[in-house]
Order: sequence, then structure tokens, then C-alpha cells
Amino acid sequence: MTIAPGLLPEGLRDRLPPQAEASSHLLHRVIVAIGRHGYARVSPPLAEFEEGLVGQLKSAGSRDLFRFVDPVSQRTLALRPDITAQVGRIAATRMGHRPRPLRLAYGGPVLKLKATQLRPERELTQTGAELIGTDSVAAVIEILQVAIEALEVAGVTGITVDLTLPDLVETLAAGAMPLPAGKIDAARDMLDAKDAGGLAGLGASAYLPFIEAAGPVAPALAKLRAIEGAQALDKRLEAIEAIVVAIGDRVSLTLDPTERHGFEYQRWIGFSLFGEGLSGEIGRGGTYSIVHPDGSEEKATGFSLYLDPLVDVGLGAVEHKRVFLPLGTDPATSAKLRAEDWITIAAVSEADDAAALGCTHILRDGHPVAL
Amino acid sequence: MTIAPGLLPEGLRDRLPPQAEASSHLLHRVIVAIGRHGYARVSPPLAEFEEGLVGQLKSAGSRDLFRFVDPVSQRTLALRPDITAQVGRIAATRMGHRPRPLRLAYGGPVLKLKATQLRPERELTQTGAELIGTDSVAAVIEILQVAIEALEVAGVTGITVDLTLPDLVETLAAGAMPLPAGKIDAARDMLDAKDAGGLAGLGASAYLPFIEAAGPVAPALAKLRAIEGAQALDKRLEAIEAIVVAIGDRVSLTLDPTERHGFEYQRWIGFSLFGEGLSGEIGRGGTYSIVHPDGSEEKATGFSLYLDPLVDVGLGAVEHKRVFLPLGTDPATSAKLRAEDWITIAAVSEADDAAALGCTHILRDGHPVAL
Repeated sequence: MTIAPGLLPEGLRDRLPPQAEASSHLLHRVIVAIGRHGYARVSPPLAEFEEGLVGQLKSAGSRDLFRFVDPVSQRTLALRPDITAQVGRIAATRMGHRPRPLRLAYGGPVLKLKATQLRPERELTQTGAELIGTDSVAAVIEILQVAIEALEVAGVTGITVDLTLPDLVETLAAGAMPLPAGKIDAARDMLDAKDAGGLAGLGASAYLPFIEAAGPVAPALAKLRAIEGAQALDKRLEAIEAIVVAIGDRVSLTLDPTERHGFEYQRWIGFSLFGEGLSGEIGRGGTYSIVHPDGSEEKATGFSLYLDPLVDVGLGAVEHKRVFLPLGTDPATSAKLRAEDWITIAAVSEADDAAALGCTHILRDGHPVAL
Repeated sequence: MTIAPGLLPEGLRDRLPPQAEASSHLLHRVIVAIGRHGYARVSPPLAEFEEGLVGQLKSAGSRDLFRFVDPVSQRTLALRPDITAQVGRIAATRMGHRPRPLRLAYGGPVLKLKATQLRPERELTQTGAELIGTDSVAAVIEILQVAIEALEVAGVTGITVDLTLPDLVETLAAGAMPLPAGKIDAARDMLDAKDAGGLAGLGASAYLPFIEAAGPVAPALAKLRAIEGAQALDKRLEAIEAIVVAIGDRVSLTLDPTERHGFEYQRWIGFSLFGEGLSGEIGRGGTYSIVHPDGSEEKATGFSLYLDPLVDVGLGAVEHKRVFLPLGTDPATSAKLRAEDWITIAAVSEADDAAALGCTHILRDGHPVAL
């Protein structure tokens, strides 16, 4: 079967004007804003050795790779489905000797083998920042502040940050709320699914109150504090209180302590980012570890944003004044107009039509006149 | 054999600070400059159906593709080795109904299966502009002016534009300097290789003087005008004279009328772009045709630049003032510094070292003090 001209594979698309410009402007503005906090840009390649990329990715990611054989190396390469792991590789290898904390930023396209129902696109623009060498409360607060500022410069309003405690079950199971090692994974899954019956059947009823301790951060924190045996979480709860002090005025903060989905590799804290009028999460982050070539682990904190949903709702669009230049316009005049922020559309034939070409103005006697 | 951590496939690389930022700044500045001339950005996907991509590419390009099977469509996809062909597809299909001339710009990564000796990189940043619907002298002059401005905002100096006449042999062979159809390709190759003996052996000695008519544009034009039987080129030569008038003051102009290499799909004029201190060509363009779904052809004029050689010689680098903020610095103070163009590096622990972190200043009593 021949493919119709112009048809693209599912999940891959052309960005046309004005969205293509909006997308590139958003990425530029976001990465400049991140850079102002000292995050220096790195730009890893679109493809790497599959083996290297899989080693950096968590299990879920390794199934999501476009793979192909490289005739030069005779090895299988894969397209990156995520840039975070590549930044971790850079931090652990080529920038392993740089002083810590190391602040790195990135932004560019990623390709996923399979789309999700929520996100039908397979090529996405990912951007973010990683603070390598620390997962302290101060690090988390900085990363959250940078993420919020990035969303704000992108035009997102009504920002919600949903906090979670990815290793909650492991932490409690080792102490006041014991669970045999073989049941920890099952308990986590049931908490994630808010499956009270399942938890009871597992003999993990002590964990039931955590399901209720979700929602706006203040009441959720109060509920967590009231849970018998949850004292092992005290330092986590103090950290969340510090986060509330730091960013509670700027965003809505919610807490879902047992949310695990997508936080398989985050350590003590993870977060999802939401914005008004944007469906689904638009970014996420938290604390994690990168692995050095010698096998040692290093703590890190970071966030990622996906800009496509923002572009899709019209963020990043730039209004332009477009002036039509009749044939024979002096080049110095047109250069002056561009320096004054005009977009100039020069006639290349007598047939060119200012209105059809989307011009808002036409140059008459050296001055732009509204059409 | 296990791949060493951090090792990348040949021709693929990480851009680290400050080059990664330089690369993204250059692309941004270039595409904004192109946009000021009315070229609206489009952003095609990184991968397409192989069949569609090969149809758009010329024969040389179709051998240069990374291919892989898409589990969703069960089809072979290929990574784009070039964005120009995708822009042609968009102009012919989704934007086929838009008024002409249609001005489109693009910029992003491309992946080539094989590197060349001159360009060992296989992932490159390509940017450019296409003026769809015309290949007139006015169109060529506009495209050359936009290309030169793009190079200028990127910081390139000593720009040389080398003009060529890709269909010179076809044009003359049909008129005053007849050649049998079967010998045209061979004559072109020999002219391209400046192989005088080969031309004579082919019975195409009449074409010998064209080999000598290369170099700085004024003497080359004079030599072309003096060639007996070259009157069929008069309109071309007038066009080149118009180009000299338009851009001769801004750049060095050379003419190599028989240069064919890489201009297999250009029509009446092609050009290569060079810059001082940059080895090899950094861009090229010319007149060509795009093919519509109904088989009709449409004339077009455009140029492409590759930004990587510019980044490699240090263009696009941005100097930053970096101020270290001790623990406990007021967020309003740090926001004010960023608004004043400072990069702020906030301490996240007592151990953080301003100098080691590359700071040029430290905040003392609310003011940045040089380190």
C-alpha cells in the first residue's frame, strides 16, 4: 500500500505556523529562565548505544525505545525517550570531576516508541534542570522554585504541585509498621491503587490511613501526623512543611503520600506539576540517584517539563506586526523597520498581495500604514 | 564486548557548557533573524515514513538514512537527514493552499547515517529558509540577503558566496554548443572535475573555456561573456550582475559556473556559503522545484546553514556574570539580581564554594562583590 503524500506516522506531526514558533519560543524562554539560576545547558545526542541508554533508564523506559543498527559501529543504537538519563550519564562521566553541586539544564526532542492515551504524541519537547550532588530539602526547594518559575515564564497559571513520598512503604516497613520484604511491593501497589481491601488481605491494614491522608497539603499533613506508627516519617513531614513555607504562597500544594505511578526511581520525595486549563501533568521531578562508572551512587534532585501541551493550548504564541514592502523598497529602510521589531515581507513580483500574505501594514512613503 | 560508560557512537556527541548554550543561542538568533523577513517557522517531526522521506529526497540522500520499524504502523520509518525536503512536503501538502510566495523557516537536528571526512558529525543542527512559489532573480537575491544576515547575526565574518550554474551544460547543449543527450552527464562530470582531457575526448572541447571562467565574480563574468556560443547564458549572467549589485558590497562573491557537486537538484542557480576561519562550506542553497501530490512542480528558492562548525570555533558563546548567594539570601533579592541579568548560584549547603562553582561575584550586604 502506498502512503498518501504528506501522511505522517501516528503520533508524529508537523508543527505549522504559529505553533512551531510558539514551541521554539517557549523552549528558549524556559531554558533561559532555568539558566538564570545557574543551570548550564548540556545537549546530549538524539541517539546512543542501546546498551548505554538502557543502563541509564529505569525498567519501564527500556521498553519504550526506537532501535536501529548503526552501520558504522555495527551496534544497535536507540533514540532517546528521555533526556534526564543522558544528563545523569554526562554528570557521572564527562562532568564527573566538576565541583558539586553541579547544575545542568537541557531541552530538546525525545521520541517514544508508544504513545499514551493521555499523550498521543510520540515526539515531545522535554526540558528541565538537574541539581547533581544533593537531595537535601534545600535542593528540593530550589528545584521546585526553578520549575515553578519555568512554568510561569511559559505563561502557565494556576500551578499545582502534587507531592508524594515514593519510599514511604519501605521506610515504615523497616520500623514501626513492619511488613515482610516479600509483601512490600504488593503493599505499594495497593496503596497506589488505593485498594483498601487488598491491603487488609495482605495483613497491611496499618497502612490504610495513608490512603485518606491525601489532598490539600495542610489537612493531609495533619492526617499523616495523626497516624499511629508514622513517626519514622517525621523528617519527611518537616521537609514538606519547609516546602510549604517556601512555595505555598506561589502555587497550590497537594500531597498524595502513596502515589507511586511514574515515581519508580524517585527516592524520598517526588512531585507532579499541573496547570490551569492543561489536562494531565505537565512535568514532574524529585530526588533520585545517578550511578558513576565505579558503581558508586550520587544523590540528585531535578525536574522535567513537557512543553507540547502548553503549545497546544496556545501558550508561547507571539503577535507580530507584518509590513509589506513594495518592489524597489530601499534595503536600508527595510533593515530599519526590522530593527524596530517589524516583520518585513518584501514583494518579489508585481503580483504579490499584501493582504493575502498576512500583512497587517503596507509601506507607503517610507512609513507603515495599517491595511 | 561491553561499551564503556559514557562512550558514544562515532559522530554523535554531547555538547557541554558553554557550547551547548552557544548552539541553542545561535539557532535562536538565526531563526529570529530569518523570521524578521517574514519566514514563518515550521517544525516537521524527526522521523517519517521511509517511503515518504525517500520520495522527497534526491537519490544521494536516500542512501543516508537511519531506518527502523515502527511497531505502531508496522512500517519502516527513517530519521530525517535533512529538513529542506520535509519543508517542501509541508509546502506542497498541508500548506499547499496558502498564498504564494510562501516563506517558511526551520531549524533543528538532523541525523545522517554516514559522516564525511570534512564533517565527522552525524547529528547536525540545520537551519534555513525556503521561499516557495518563485525562483526569480528577486527571489534569489532575497534568499541570499536573508542567508547573509543569518550568518552575520551568528557572528560569521568574511563571508564568501560562491555562485554556480547547475544546468549550464543542459542549457548550452540544447542550443549553440550541441552535445548528444547521452554525453551530457559525462560532460557535466568532467567539467565538475575540471578534466580538460576528458572533455576533449568526449568531443566537448567547446566547453573547455568554462573551466577557466571561475574565481572572483567580475573577471569570471567577463570570461563567460567572451566564450563563443555562450549567448544562451545571457539571462543568467544578467542575473548574476543583479546579484553583484545587491550583495557585492557585503560579501566576497565568486563564480564557479561548472561546479555541480551537491547541486544535483538545484536548477538555474546554486550557491555555497563560506566564512572566515571556518573550514569547508557552512551553508548552501539555490533554486529548485517541489512536487505537489498531483505531480505538478512548483518553483522555489532557499538556503540551509549548518550551525555546528560555527559553535566549534566559539561563535554564539555568551559571557555571564555569576553571583553566589549565601544560605538564607532573601528570594526577592535573588529575583531582582536575575532581572538585572545576573546568574544567581544559591548555596544549598554550608559547604558550597563560590569560586569552585564558577561564580564571578558573591553577594555581600545585598550587593554583588567581585571574587
